[in-house]
Amino acid sequence: MLPTRTLKELAEYLNGRVIGDENITVNGLAPLESAESDKITFLANPKYAAKVAETRAAALLIFPGGESYGRNVIEVANPYLGFAKLLTLFCTKPYHSLGVLPEANVGTRVTLGEEISIHPGACIGNCVTIGDRSVIHSGAVIYEGAIIGDDCVIHANVVVRERCRIGNRCIIQPGAVIGSDGFGYAPDGSAYFRIPQIGIVVLEDDVEIGANCTIDRAALEITLIRRGTKLDNLVQIAHNCQIGEDCMIVSQVGISGSTKIGNNVTLAGQVGVAGHLTIGDNVMVGAQSGVPSSLAANSGYSGSPTMPHRDWLRAMAVVPRLPELKKNISALEKRIAELEAALNRK
Amino acid sequence: MLPTRTLKELAEYLNGRVIGDENITVNGLAPLESAESDKITFLANPKYAAKVAETRAAALLIFPGGESYGRNVIEVANPYLGFAKLLTLFCTKPYHSLGVLPEANVGTRVTLGEEISIHPGACIGNCVTIGDRSVIHSGAVIYEGAIIGDDCVIHANVVVRERCRIGNRCIIQPGAVIGSDGFGYAPDGSAYFRIPQIGIVVLEDDVEIGANCTIDRAALEITLIRRGTKLDNLVQIAHNCQIGEDCMIVSQVGISGSTKIGNNVTLAGQVGVAGHLTIGDNVMVGAQSGVPSSLAANSGYSGSPTMPHRDWLRAMAVVPRLPELKKNISALEKRIAELEAALNRK
Amino acid sequence: MLPTRTLKELAEYLNGRVIGDENITVNGLAPLESAESDKITFLANPKYAAKVAETRAAALLIFPGGESYGRNVIEVANPYLGFAKLLTLFCTKPYHSLGVLPEANVGTRVTLGEEISIHPGACIGNCVTIGDRSVIHSGAVIYEGAIIGDDCVIHANVVVRERCRIGNRCIIQPGAVIGSDGFGYAPDGSAYFRIPQIGIVVLEDDVEIGANCTIDRAALEITLIRRGTKLDNLVQIAHNCQIGEDCMIVSQVGISGSTKIGNNVTLAGQVGVAGHLTIGDNVMVGAQSGVPSSLAANSGYSGSPTMPHRDWLRAMAVVPRLPELKKNISALEKRIAELEAALNRK
Repeated sequence: MLPTRTLKELAEYLNGRVIGDENITVNGLAPLESAESDKITFLANPKYAAKVAETRAAALLIFPGGESYGRNVIEVANPYLGFAKLLTLFCTKPYHSLGVLPEANVGTRVTLGEEISIHPGACIGNCVTIGDRSVIHSGAVIYEGAIIGDDCVIHANVVVRERCRIGNRCIIQPGAVIGSDGFGYAPDGSAYFRIPQIGIVVLEDDVEIGANCTIDRAALEITLIRRGTKLDNLVQIAHNCQIGEDCMIVSQVGISGSTKIGNNVTLAGQVGVAGHLTIGDNVMVGAQSGVPSSLAANSGYSGSPTMPHRDWLRAMAVVPRLPELKKNISALEKRIAELEAALNRK
Repeated sequence: MLPTRTLKELAEYLNGRVIGDENITVNGLAPLESAESDKITFLANPKYAAKVAETRAAALLIFPGGESYGRNVIEVANPYLGFAKLLTLFCTKPYHSLGVLPEANVGTRVTLGEEISIHPGACIGNCVTIGDRSVIHSGAVIYEGAIIGDDCVIHANVVVRERCRIGNRCIIQPGAVIGSDGFGYAPDGSAYFRIPQIGIVVLEDDVEIGANCTIDRAALEITLIRRGTKLDNLVQIAHNCQIGEDCMIVSQVGISGSTKIGNNVTLAGQVGVAGHLTIGDNVMVGAQSGVPSSLAANSGYSGSPTMPHRDWLRAMAVVPRLPELKKNISALEKRIAELEAALNRK
Repeated sequence: MLPTRTLKELAEYLNGRVIGDENITVNGLAPLESAESDKITFLANPKYAAKVAETRAAALLIFPGGESYGRNVIEVANPYLGFAKLLTLFCTKPYHSLGVLPEANVGTRVTLGEEISIHPGACIGNCVTIGDRSVIHSGAVIYEGAIIGDDCVIHANVVVRERCRIGNRCIIQPGAVIGSDGFGYAPDGSAYFRIPQIGIVVLEDDVEIGANCTIDRAALEITLIRRGTKLDNLVQIAHNCQIGEDCMIVSQVGISGSTKIGNNVTLAGQVGVAGHLTIGDNVMVGAQSGVPSSLAANSGYSGSPTMPHRDWLRAMAVVPRLPELKKNISALEKRIAELEAALNRK
């Protein structure tokens, strides 16, 4: 049987206010449409307010002052955040340390924290440090001298290369590569001479990296991702980049070498950013944009090459009408030629 | 010695008709240009019909009524499909079960079908189910409770995370990740609060997934890819997506969260699709397009943002001429000003 | 203590000329801004010449005739190449063979060269050949019959599928997949019929492949990457492609099936190239471009679809002004109508 909670308990947990029967119990969360009568659900988008009346859920999280349609509700300032917190409360299992399983490969001079879990087939190189309660899944490979902080989850088949440093509470999804060689070659006139990439990657605390991302080590110093930044899947971060705090880097974004990105920046899916740029704090870049030059803080940009987001919206509205504009110009030319002829005749 | 087949046998197998000597034998397939006299080849593109006269191949598959240039041919309705079928006939080795090799890591309470093959270094978590004749290659990691159907091939270093379900006859290329956490965070005013992703991924029968693809598990329920759909390499499918039957998703496509895609949809390379959209059946989207809103069925679209494919072709034809158009407009302005002046003088 | 070198020794090594004290010693390289007094640094970009005066480094590599600001300098024809060579001199550890470590999985009839290193958890299939001094890192999986040349580095969790051939001195970053099945299906009217991909991938000497790249095996023959070509991370090469010598393929590029690319071609980040095209030697394609048709040699192209790079620059300069142009055209139409009316009145 699933553990249950009263609305009163949940409201206290979320710092919210029950309207209706606070002694009702629920045992989990579900979406508005599919929730059954033992579940709580939430209304994050006021557009769907009418569905509140229809849901079979026992209760809902809603915005303060939202129409409750006579249902049992908990008013919270941010129902979406409330949903995230309740999901964590109901669905996150307590961590249970497995220790180092016998089929794991662990090198020499390895420093292991307390209550860790190293799964079968994980490979831990020499001189690696792994913090308390961190989990290394099967097939993950940690090269010599890398450092993993406390409470990390390193999923299956992740690679962390030599000397890279992962902070605390980092989560790295399967297949991500941290610390691959930067793409650096010096043309010598006949071929490309490889530049050794002797730097590292540093991920600060609470960084999360999506599946099959690639983050290159610096040529000389550090490729840095600061506290709280989240990368979606298949993102490419080139060598020497510095990414600020609390950024959201959506899937398939590519950031070229030595670019510096501020705090709270959002790069939407498939954005490309050129090298050696500076992107200011709180910038938002629309999906598929190509950023060829530095971007000032606190603004939105779109397009390839990028322009202010509003300008882009207006310009893109004209693009499908370009053939018509071209035709209009030709028509005007003809009418002007006729006018010129008529005027000359007078 | 390679096994041989007569043209008669092949024509029966393909439901085609021999024109020429039906007792000729061949032992395999090769391309039109490089086939030797013990091979059969095919003409899929009528553009290259003249090459039929030149090939050294013993025989050809051609369209009914195609010019045979006096060669031995098999007429079939679809020579390209015929080629695929003969290649399968000649080149697919019969499956041979290896069992569970001793260097594989297999957890507890695992259910294994008959005639399976689990290669060295594969890691099978607890409570996993693997169907009959399925192959798990080295380095593949199957997390706890996942279910793999019959006749699947899970290539090296694939990751299938907890509780995900793979249908029958699925092929997953190396490095693909099935069931990574969806990219879901609720901003709490100072940082991003992680939303547990407690759903799963379901691949129906005959789904094929390219190398290093990433398919995120749903937040609450199911990320679904329906029967027969094929993904090329490096494709990203975000959480809660539903992809229909018999879709072709070409390399490096990214589909954002909760989008629903119909049946028989083709997304060409590097397409991006925004979240929460509905793409109708039989839609084709051109390479590198960006889809910002839902698309009606049975049509072709291109561009970023997308427009009907024909409109896009016409608009793109104008883009290189924009500087000229701008100049034309300036010239017209000048001529009009002169006309206005002249008229005022009169 | 780090080994040291005099400027005289370094100048001889680089075929350069010391200006200043040739007996000064340094023990490594560092960037212009952060170098300490035991390091040498370099000025690759004349834009930063003023920083030469400020660096704390003991010496600098500069262009012949560059201002030395009274510092000890080595003049070399190509300071960036000089930097790469000194970094290699100072920072590359001599290779030390580990042999086959006991936790590696090695199949039968494997041919191993001299002084190889096979790390724990690597999986080497039957009938594989590995050349002298090559390193196979943990979690790498080499399928049956593959051939790896001399002096290669195959990083962790790389997959090389059956019968593929890797030349000498190739470096493959973690997670790359060589020889996945090409994306080939023949529609049979109701579903997609899989075309067996029986070809292979061949990488010639000195090819380097980025992290999580995917290179598909040919349908029938060979997907080929020629000598000296370098791929950045997350690049997709489809089946039957031929890539020339000394190409630079930047991150997240996708090349569709059967396309042939010449020598010394540069494809910038996120470029997409359609299938069955021919790209000439020395072509450069700008970031995010989409190449729909073959490109002539010795030129630069940009845009999606591509046009000559200069045309693209000029066209893109107009795009943000499209709404203004549209307005101008409307204004002209009005003025012309007025002129026409006025002329009719006269």
